[in-house]
Amino acid sequence: MSALRVGLLGLGVVGSGTFKVLNSNAAEITRRTGRQIEVVAVAVRDVDKARELVGDSIPVTQNGLELVQRADVDVVVELIGGDTVAYEWVMAAIANGKHVVTANKALLATRGNEIFEAAREQGVMVAYEAAVAGGIPIIKAMREGLAANKIEWVAGIINGTTNYILSEMRNAQLAFSEALYEAQRLGFAEADPTFDIEGVDAAHKLALLASLAFGIPVQFDKIYTEGISTVAREDLQHADRLGYRIKLLGIARRTPNGIELRVHPTLIPAEQPLANIEGAMNAVLVQGDMVGPTMYYGQGAGELPTASAVVADLIDVARLQTVKQQHQVSALAFQADALIDIPILPMTDVVSSYYLRLRVEDRPGVLADIARILADSQISVDSMFQEPHGEEQSDIIFLTHRAVEGHVNKALEQVQALELVKSKITRIRVESLS
Amino acid sequence: MSALRVGLLGLGVVGSGTFKVLNSNAAEITRRTGRQIEVVAVAVRDVDKARELVGDSIPVTQNGLELVQRADVDVVVELIGGDTVAYEWVMAAIANGKHVVTANKALLATRGNEIFEAAREQGVMVAYEAAVAGGIPIIKAMREGLAANKIEWVAGIINGTTNYILSEMRNAQLAFSEALYEAQRLGFAEADPTFDIEGVDAAHKLALLASLAFGIPVQFDKIYTEGISTVAREDLQHADRLGYRIKLLGIARRTPNGIELRVHPTLIPAEQPLANIEGAMNAVLVQGDMVGPTMYYGQGAGELPTASAVVADLIDVARLQTVKQQHQVSALAFQADALIDIPILPMTDVVSSYYLRLRVEDRPGVLADIARILADSQISVDSMFQEPHGEEQSDIIFLTHRAVEGHVNKALEQVQALELVKSKITRIRVESLS
Repeated sequence: MSALRVGLLGLGVVGSGTFKVLNSNAAEITRRTGRQIEVVAVAVRDVDKARELVGDSIPVTQNGLELVQRADVDVVVELIGGDTVAYEWVMAAIANGKHVVTANKALLATRGNEIFEAAREQGVMVAYEAAVAGGIPIIKAMREGLAANKIEWVAGIINGTTNYILSEMRNAQLAFSEALYEAQRLGFAEADPTFDIEGVDAAHKLALLASLAFGIPVQFDKIYTEGISTVAREDLQHADRLGYRIKLLGIARRTPNGIELRVHPTLIPAEQPLANIEGAMNAVLVQGDMVGPTMYYGQGAGELPTASAVVADLIDVARLQTVKQQHQVSALAFQADALIDIPILPMTDVVSSYYLRLRVEDRPGVLADIARILADSQISVDSMFQEPHGEEQSDIIFLTHRAVEGHVNKALEQVQALELVKSKITRIRVESLS
Repeated sequence: MSALRVGLLGLGVVGSGTFKVLNSNAAEITRRTGRQIEVVAVAVRDVDKARELVGDSIPVTQNGLELVQRADVDVVVELIGGDTVAYEWVMAAIANGKHVVTANKALLATRGNEIFEAAREQGVMVAYEAAVAGGIPIIKAMREGLAANKIEWVAGIINGTTNYILSEMRNAQLAFSEALYEAQRLGFAEADPTFDIEGVDAAHKLALLASLAFGIPVQFDKIYTEGISTVAREDLQHADRLGYRIKLLGIARRTPNGIELRVHPTLIPAEQPLANIEGAMNAVLVQGDMVGPTMYYGQGAGELPTASAVVADLIDVARLQTVKQQHQVSALAFQADALIDIPILPMTDVVSSYYLRLRVEDRPGVLADIARILADSQISVDSMFQEPHGEEQSDIIFLTHRAVEGHVNKALEQVQALELVKSKITRIRVESLS
């Protein structure tokens, strides 16, 4: 069979990685697919730099719109990122009948519904394994491997930067800012780390996982998102003492009242497989009604791991390029006409357990006052301990039983207003993942 | 589209599970595939019992050969196990142009090459996700998800019975026989547990994983296989003290001199993700040259988890039933004409580190005598400790640096022959999995 001809948009980290994987493993890939996969055109901002990598035989342009119209391109690989030019070029590629492979979670999380619909109308595939959890084949597992299941929930460590920072804070007993600095020095965090540490990147990925799990449209804007900058070194220590670890999780869960979509730091039991995912690694735990829990673990970012996922998508496209649409896997795992608009549960209706830490004046009656407020809001305390801080203050740590988030919000407002409470209350959700 | 019509051979644990999953999740499966999957005929030994599950509307026969010839069957699901009748009926199904889905690792490990070749000639698919690691989509990950990689090695906990026994021996400090009894009582081990505890079941699965990893024919008979019955409670305790866990691993590794294929108890570092897989759970760690390590975790057995994998295969068949062979994934991940007969490394040429435990007379010079024999065989000791046993004997535990298995065998023969050595030497391999 003739080669699959690839037009590559972008030669940054993942773009060059993709080029390298296709070259280094050309023989192994052909042994598997019976077909060669060849980059036939590249669009980049810096043409001279691109030449150093791809040589003189491949046409290099700055004009992506020109590339996606080339008759000799079967599939367009979009690795430029962002949602402006990338959006324009991806839509143009689809309009020109090209299959699309992309690693762009921001683009798919915000404009995926529109892109997938356009692809469906044109009968082309949009593959995005690299958009979630880097090299881990989690999209394939959810779209195909677990297709016999009704998915009950998904919980994932899907941002390596924050997992690295939380691991370092715990293992090296660093403050958040110190661990962030270390992550930046080692290249695990960007100069402007906002998207990662505030949970936005994880929310992009969760939007896609939730659609794959439940057959709902992509709804990034409905995700409750809280980052890790409020997690303090002592919270990690207290969690340890209580038999927990703190991880930034993306959680999507089916409940009778709607779907929970949330990204936040979470205490999880230390014996949970997810609890032991260290450093910049990613892992996704999926609960299916038939298979039970399955977990997928690996490098969630980086040049070659991410390129491994891009090329896996290309291999799928190479196999399925000429078949009818019905033989392809649907972009969001479910048939387009089977997507259901299940309501997303407002965060105030979510039920969870809570870890609370607050600094109080060390005098009789403090605990009674706080416990009274919690009880009045139907929040019952599972365990509690107190640590002296200086001569006249104490830190109180509570673990609550399951309670409604809205009740907890109101109770915490009242507790916060007490004169004897001397710090902003730290509140971290606790999940058993079972 | 019309329904995919399934002929079911066998209604034992996994067979009934498959029937249940197809029924319970019919709506969700159709939402995903746009197609119904329907059991249209069943072959079982006990027709009356089958009727209780499948009702009166589905034809039930005792004759599998009749079932696989039915014109209204598109795909035959073989869940009877064994390699006699199962072999005959699977080959007949293929000869009749039926796709085959099977969970039968023993059959594929011993006769897979022949079966896959027959299927290729007939242009039908043979899918076997359920044959390895139950509900975990590891076959799909290796055939498709990691297809961009040259796989360097695979190491898996792929037998739940032995993992349950080793976990119990460690956690409840049981002897092997006690833990085995407990596993039998709870249904994690069969009445005759030989296949599981001697590593044969794991070797069946490893034979398939190795073919998928390297593009080699299935070679069950070349796997070095050692079970867990020689692992003692104190070995698990010593391993803990040394910072390791003991797991029964199936290991397939590409080396410059050939491919290692081995199943044996293994000390692995306690911080390794595989080390923390507890109870009857399975996990497979795969090292790709581009993606690095990825791990897949879940229930490796059981009615519904295994059925989840069978039905995932059926969903693949439902999508790809009518496409040309080139659009299907090759049975062993690689094109049939690209399979290479890479030599399998004899076990004596394998390089590993070793944990050694031996009981010796407690007198001066013992250690010197043993250390001299090890040194003469080019085995260097990494660490060592001694524990008194009674008044006049001691247990010595060695961890060696990496050494050639053949050298170790010879050295251990000589050590064993020393008069001062009072027990059979326990030798367990040590792997860093990095």
